[in-house]
Amino acid sequence: MTARLMLMVLFGTAMGVMAQQAPPRTAPPPSRLPARPLPAEPVTVDTAEGGRVRAVVVARGMPHPWGLAFLPDGTMLVTERAGRLRVVRDGRLEPLPVAGVPEVFTRGRFAGLMDVAADPQFAQNRFVYLTYSKPVNKGSTVALARGRFDGTALTDVSDVFVADAWSAGGAAGSRIAFGPDGMLYLTVGGSFNISPGVQGTQDPGNHLGKVLRLTPDGKAPPDNPFVGRPGHKPEIYSMGHRNQLGLAFRPGTGELWAHENAPQGGDELNVIKPGLNYGWPLVSYARDYSGPRIAARPWQEGMEQPAVVWLPSIAPSGMVFYTGDRFPAWKGNLFVGAMVTGRIQGTGHLERLVFTPAGEELRRESLFGELRQRIRDVRQGPDGFLYLLTDEEDGALLRLEPAN
Amino acid sequence: MTARLMLMVLFGTAMGVMAQQAPPRTAPPPSRLPARPLPAEPVTVDTAEGGRVRAVVVARGMPHPWGLAFLPDGTMLVTERAGRLRVVRDGRLEPLPVAGVPEVFTRGRFAGLMDVAADPQFAQNRFVYLTYSKPVNKGSTVALARGRFDGTALTDVSDVFVADAWSAGGAAGSRIAFGPDGMLYLTVGGSFNISPGVQGTQDPGNHLGKVLRLTPDGKAPPDNPFVGRPGHKPEIYSMGHRNQLGLAFRPGTGELWAHENAPQGGDELNVIKPGLNYGWPLVSYARDYSGPRIAARPWQEGMEQPAVVWLPSIAPSGMVFYTGDRFPAWKGNLFVGAMVTGRIQGTGHLERLVFTPAGEELRRESLFGELRQRIRDVRQGPDGFLYLLTDEEDGALLRLEPAN
Repeated sequence: MTARLMLMVLFGTAMGVMAQQAPPRTAPPPSRLPARPLPAEPVTVDTAEGGRVRAVVVARGMPHPWGLAFLPDGTMLVTERAGRLRVVRDGRLEPLPVAGVPEVFTRGRFAGLMDVAADPQFAQNRFVYLTYSKPVNKGSTVALARGRFDGTALTDVSDVFVADAWSAGGAAGSRIAFGPDGMLYLTVGGSFNISPGVQGTQDPGNHLGKVLRLTPDGKAPPDNPFVGRPGHKPEIYSMGHRNQLGLAFRPGTGELWAHENAPQGGDELNVIKPGLNYGWPLVSYARDYSGPRIAARPWQEGMEQPAVVWLPSIAPSGMVFYTGDRFPAWKGNLFVGAMVTGRIQGTGHLERLVFTPAGEELRRESLFGELRQRIRDVRQGPDGFLYLLTDEEDGALLRLEPAN
Repeated sequence: MTARLMLMVLFGTAMGVMAQQAPPRTAPPPSRLPARPLPAEPVTVDTAEGGRVRAVVVARGMPHPWGLAFLPDGTMLVTERAGRLRVVRDGRLEPLPVAGVPEVFTRGRFAGLMDVAADPQFAQNRFVYLTYSKPVNKGSTVALARGRFDGTALTDVSDVFVADAWSAGGAAGSRIAFGPDGMLYLTVGGSFNISPGVQGTQDPGNHLGKVLRLTPDGKAPPDNPFVGRPGHKPEIYSMGHRNQLGLAFRPGTGELWAHENAPQGGDELNVIKPGLNYGWPLVSYARDYSGPRIAARPWQEGMEQPAVVWLPSIAPSGMVFYTGDRFPAWKGNLFVGAMVTGRIQGTGHLERLVFTPAGEELRRESLFGELRQRIRDVRQGPDGFLYLLTDEEDGALLRLEPAN
């Protein structure tokens, strides 16, 4: 594997040089549907298998909410990208944000406070985890902070892990998922690193474009795939990813699934296995925003094929396998937030995907496109309902309920 | 090329044997949104770049219309799959169908009367061309008939070409396009031939899954790519296609573009060049309806890559490059009819695709999904409006107009 990786890095460097020689091209300006403000009243839609479903506004007025987590008592924590952590308790948004959140880098449209997760032993330790763009002297990187939540503030906050994944602009997204093995899985995006070289996501010596596997204390567990290998960061679980904004364990199989954003076409949903390479940017279905293909081919020996590809792109963010009882026909289905479809703004939606037990795709349904909202996160509540965050200036927390 | 083709055929045979050994799997039953009857009043929608656009019902009550052609005076000819040819004159559907249409094979949901085209010299020769599933003793094949249209009937009707592409079920679709070279290009589907072997679309000795290039009299022109080559049908222009239900020449470049339906995911839009192999079913992005991948890989040396892939599938049918003045922002855009999205019935729509001058995709927009109609054909009228056929029991001819 090391020899193969070496070859890939060398090949990647050659590709990077080629990319540098190509003349720069301009992407067309964004195209968009007229904005449609989110109505105050519930919006009800037909679905193919879930009957009529209603989206109810639980809370709004949160600018660009990003991540959603439930505490055991049903309290919801919501991150806002600009660096605030909000509390929704008993169905109401608390007016004051949570104190104690680390300072975040917020330059550009992507960087900031990102995901939030409660410790599986939250009832005992009250630990809450946050991922965020951390200011560093070269720009920013992805960090994982942890603190104890007392109901209104985070205390004893510290960075348990800081990735070696700096960028000037801060476009690296990050999600958290706790595994059945008690480990904390963390994505670190690699989208900003196409130019000038492609080494970033293919180089095991940094954390760009990787899925990481950490102890809850932010350390590399000794059974990680690259532990002890020279030139390899021991936290790496898989590599060759772009910008992974969704991460979830599949119930029943315990598999780790992650999706990632490609530039234009070619968003991927991958089943993540230890030590494997998912190809970005050497192997991709994507085109650059200005038209040319990113990679010469979408397939290559030694690079993993995605379980699902989106063509056109849907800019996936957030995902959850549904296991509740509120929508019996949706049990086992995967729900993915979509921020924009086919490079036309105003086409965000919730996507439902159905798989065979072996994880082979059977069908996909686009839901709630009528709302014209960017869907940034989707989670299942302890009450069995689905909850969405809309990535808008007047961002909202929505609850989906059967409306039959 | 012959040696390479031989290898492909051999490889294909091996794959076919492998496919036969796999246990048969059952596809899930269709999933669908509740039906929504087409309203009598115009339906107006927002679009990203074309302003507000209205769909007006010009005619309805045509069961499963399939192909639409304009005569120089603006009269429209519409095929119905069951074997009738209808006339829409001065905006009204004539009550009587056109006499003289050949007997068609109509078993199953696919076979029947398909495309219709007027001769480029229609004003002089009054020739109308029809493609249809022709009953043969083994089942059906695709035939191209021609007759003279006198305003109410076709006379002097004969088959100018009968494909060597028989099937028991009759699932092979077919479209016609006249080229700038005066030749008639004809698609012959190859979807039904996955099992028991894959030789059909990869075998140059038949017309399954091919684009054909014919003189208007149905003969192979002497400059076709395989003329005179043993084991090759001389009418073949390109090969390795599945079910190509859209065919159009791109204005400006004169390139021939064709799209094709894959089973689940992986519908393709290809730029068709003489003598090339587009890979079906050896190379495909598709999954079988029951989940497994059709091909081991989506890419292979010597097989052409599509310009556009749809994942999920949209079941494309009909297409036109828009060149009119009614929608200035849409000039040069490609419009594709979509019958169903992601294997959920009730999700048909019209798709708009934007390309660079070099034919690289820039963005895609889904239009008129609100109608929940299967869009079977899309054409531009001599009046510069776009016209759609809905593949429904109460099938309709719709006109799209600016509504600002």
